[in-house]
Amino acid sequence: MAASTAPQPNPNGIVTLLTDFGLGDAYVAAVKGAVLSVAPSARLVDVTHLVPPQGVHHGAFLLGQAWRAFSPGTVHLAVVDPGVGTARSALLLVGEGHFFVGPDNGLFTYVLWPRLMPRQLSHRPFSPFSAPVPEGFAAYVLDQPDYWRQPVSATFHARDVFGPVAAHLVAGARPEQLGSPTDKVTALSVPLAEWEGDVLDGLVLHVDTFGNLLTNVSEEAVVGRTVEVTVAGRTIRGVGRTYADGDGLVAVVGSNGFLEIAAAMGSAARELGVGVGAVVRVRRAR
Amino acid sequence: MAASTAPQPNPNGIVTLLTDFGLGDAYVAAVKGAVLSVAPSARLVDVTHLVPPQGVHHGAFLLGQAWRAFSPGTVHLAVVDPGVGTARSALLLVGEGHFFVGPDNGLFTYVLWPRLMPRQLSHRPFSPFSAPVPEGFAAYVLDQPDYWRQPVSATFHARDVFGPVAAHLVAGARPEQLGSPTDKVTALSVPLAEWEGDVLDGLVLHVDTFGNLLTNVSEEAVVGRTVEVTVAGRTIRGVGRTYADGDGLVAVVGSNGFLEIAAAMGSAARELGVGVGAVVRVRRAR
Amino acid sequence: MAASTAPQPNPNGIVTLLTDFGLGDAYVAAVKGAVLSVAPSARLVDVTHLVPPQGVHHGAFLLGQAWRAFSPGTVHLAVVDPGVGTARSALLLVGEGHFFVGPDNGLFTYVLWPRLMPRQLSHRPFSPFSAPVPEGFAAYVLDQPDYWRQPVSATFHARDVFGPVAAHLVAGARPEQLGSPTDKVTALSVPLAEWEGDVLDGLVLHVDTFGNLLTNVSEEAVVGRTVEVTVAGRTIRGVGRTYADGDGLVAVVGSNGFLEIAAAMGSAARELGVGVGAVVRVRRAR
Repeated sequence: MAASTAPQPNPNGIVTLLTDFGLGDAYVAAVKGAVLSVAPSARLVDVTHLVPPQGVHHGAFLLGQAWRAFSPGTVHLAVVDPGVGTARSALLLVGEGHFFVGPDNGLFTYVLWPRLMPRQLSHRPFSPFSAPVPEGFAAYVLDQPDYWRQPVSATFHARDVFGPVAAHLVAGARPEQLGSPTDKVTALSVPLAEWEGDVLDGLVLHVDTFGNLLTNVSEEAVVGRTVEVTVAGRTIRGVGRTYADGDGLVAVVGSNGFLEIAAAMGSAARELGVGVGAVVRVRRAR
Repeated sequence: MAASTAPQPNPNGIVTLLTDFGLGDAYVAAVKGAVLSVAPSARLVDVTHLVPPQGVHHGAFLLGQAWRAFSPGTVHLAVVDPGVGTARSALLLVGEGHFFVGPDNGLFTYVLWPRLMPRQLSHRPFSPFSAPVPEGFAAYVLDQPDYWRQPVSATFHARDVFGPVAAHLVAGARPEQLGSPTDKVTALSVPLAEWEGDVLDGLVLHVDTFGNLLTNVSEEAVVGRTVEVTVAGRTIRGVGRTYADGDGLVAVVGSNGFLEIAAAMGSAARELGVGVGAVVRVRRAR
Repeated sequence: MAASTAPQPNPNGIVTLLTDFGLGDAYVAAVKGAVLSVAPSARLVDVTHLVPPQGVHHGAFLLGQAWRAFSPGTVHLAVVDPGVGTARSALLLVGEGHFFVGPDNGLFTYVLWPRLMPRQLSHRPFSPFSAPVPEGFAAYVLDQPDYWRQPVSATFHARDVFGPVAAHLVAGARPEQLGSPTDKVTALSVPLAEWEGDVLDGLVLHVDTFGNLLTNVSEEAVVGRTVEVTVAGRTIRGVGRTYADGDGLVAVVGSNGFLEIAAAMGSAARELGVGVGAVVRVRRAR
């Protein structure tokens, strides 16, 4: 049983929040109020609330970028939940010393990535599949209404289920009090780019605020090699160290250890006219 | 005297903030700095700062949605203040265990709603009127400059008056130290939709980030009845439980106990071409 | 040596954050996680993260508006950093009881302004120059990697250098542990408007969320005088006290003690069609 073998971190009092609720409504505040009502000393840190509505992959990617910067014992509350009130499970995932609370719809893909990706992905990129909980992690289906805010609205589980559960974790509840162990989690299909001969075909996974293209090409794949990178018909020679290393397009290893395509003082996404899912081809230079 | 009969809650250290200051300037931070300078241990929670400029009703509605999720003892600081520096009063409202600080221009309408609405509204919807402070509440005109930041700017009372007063509440000042009791508050005229025979005409009060239309039709008005809901010429049969219950438009009881019109995976406001003030007609289905 | 003569404030636990990272990505959260990993009790207050990408002057202006509202002992972390990873220095500035951490590119101009401006500015407005550290301030080049997050990414110094240094200040590290004293800081050239005969030519320094034009014309320059103010061919007679004092354009002394041009219930920037750098001419009225 996955749950029994996983370590049980001690909460450090921090709760991060990631949603698609926007910043123009009171929804985020209602979630925070619900958390603080259970755990008055919880420290709340927003990751973002500007995930595009129902953009599960988008949210998953940003959570994947954020969580490692926090200390062990942090609770990460992530709610991008097109299926709120339907049969999708509510999930608590525990691993690497962190807690993750949210709907079981693929939001935690990049927490587990790339370890849970099957070698041969038979799925369309970014589509959901049922993955085994990897070693070192434990997952629980949240099924204990005693730890929820009553009455539970059918349309606002962030306030009524996920927020209170996150708060109870901060307040010292054990995962097994909050839910029942499960050995499957929903993940989104995201390949890790790999070399085939002299060519590696990567994917743009995210376009950030600056228009940088963030890819699934790892630092290990390119470091120490002389490569050229082609996106949308434009070829960049070599991998630079900083955004200022070119005066046009530049390929750099970004702050999370993956290849990024950037435009000096501009937006690579706009300049190239590409977005998530675009192919980034890396070749060994001759 | 209203002030003497109202309970005096103990502050819990939380200050919520709602303004129309936007997120692109330093105004919100200046208010927070002013609060923390008086009450260094105050815990600040943003409701939103994206209220449209001078959108008093819009802000009032969002405050109405947010405040109940917080524990008793919370101070709610709300500043949407087209009349800053003019003769409008500065207000402290106390009730249901919460404190509310801001200009006396209708911002606290939904804290008191629907109890302060006269049965027969002779006012145009959303227009201000002078209402008696309801039982269980106390109101104070803030008139004690000793508790303000000096010098008081004529254009930034959030930083110089309301913020410091909120902070002094957190720090333990009693309402009657901060102002003089008053038995009138400004409210905006918002009817509660009621049945007339087989028809109930509600109003759209707010359009949220997702394009959902939030109305003044209470759960009690529709629960247990077979109804159809008509907005902008489109009729929805029945009230669903979740946003996923229809594949087009859906009417659901939202998380605050009022009827909402939503579009599955889309924006009802855009699909219907309506906004705040639109009529939502509910009929008993035959 | 500048460093030895400056007072050394005691940190109060507050860290403000100002960046151009936007609110739609995980970058701000990663910085906060890095800060909290070093200083778990730090209290984080956002100034803004919506500085236009690489808008150093814009960020400098907003920091200049925000910092004085905070208590002495606050650490202000400001990162708008087009040169990240290049030879520009990383800076710690200490003065007036506050700490300022960020790239040495002019971001701290308005903290020092107008005292560091040479009487005769030979520079184009808003262009960078090397200024002496003014009396009462001390500056340090951050050169102690022991206080940084390892490994240091070449593209994310906010997370890996500035955030950790800010956190170490909160945790009690002394400035001289974190860097080496320097007697020069980079500033942006911003004149203080001065009278020449009966005319004073000011500049629009910032356009805020409401479309107000914030200028470099100080309260002292206009108070007690009968003036008229001309912008973009439109003349305003007299300086009002509140935004509601006119029914069209109004000139008021804003909350930071400088002249602002506003439009009652509208946007002066839109109405006048002007922005940063526009001339605001003040004349003594006859």
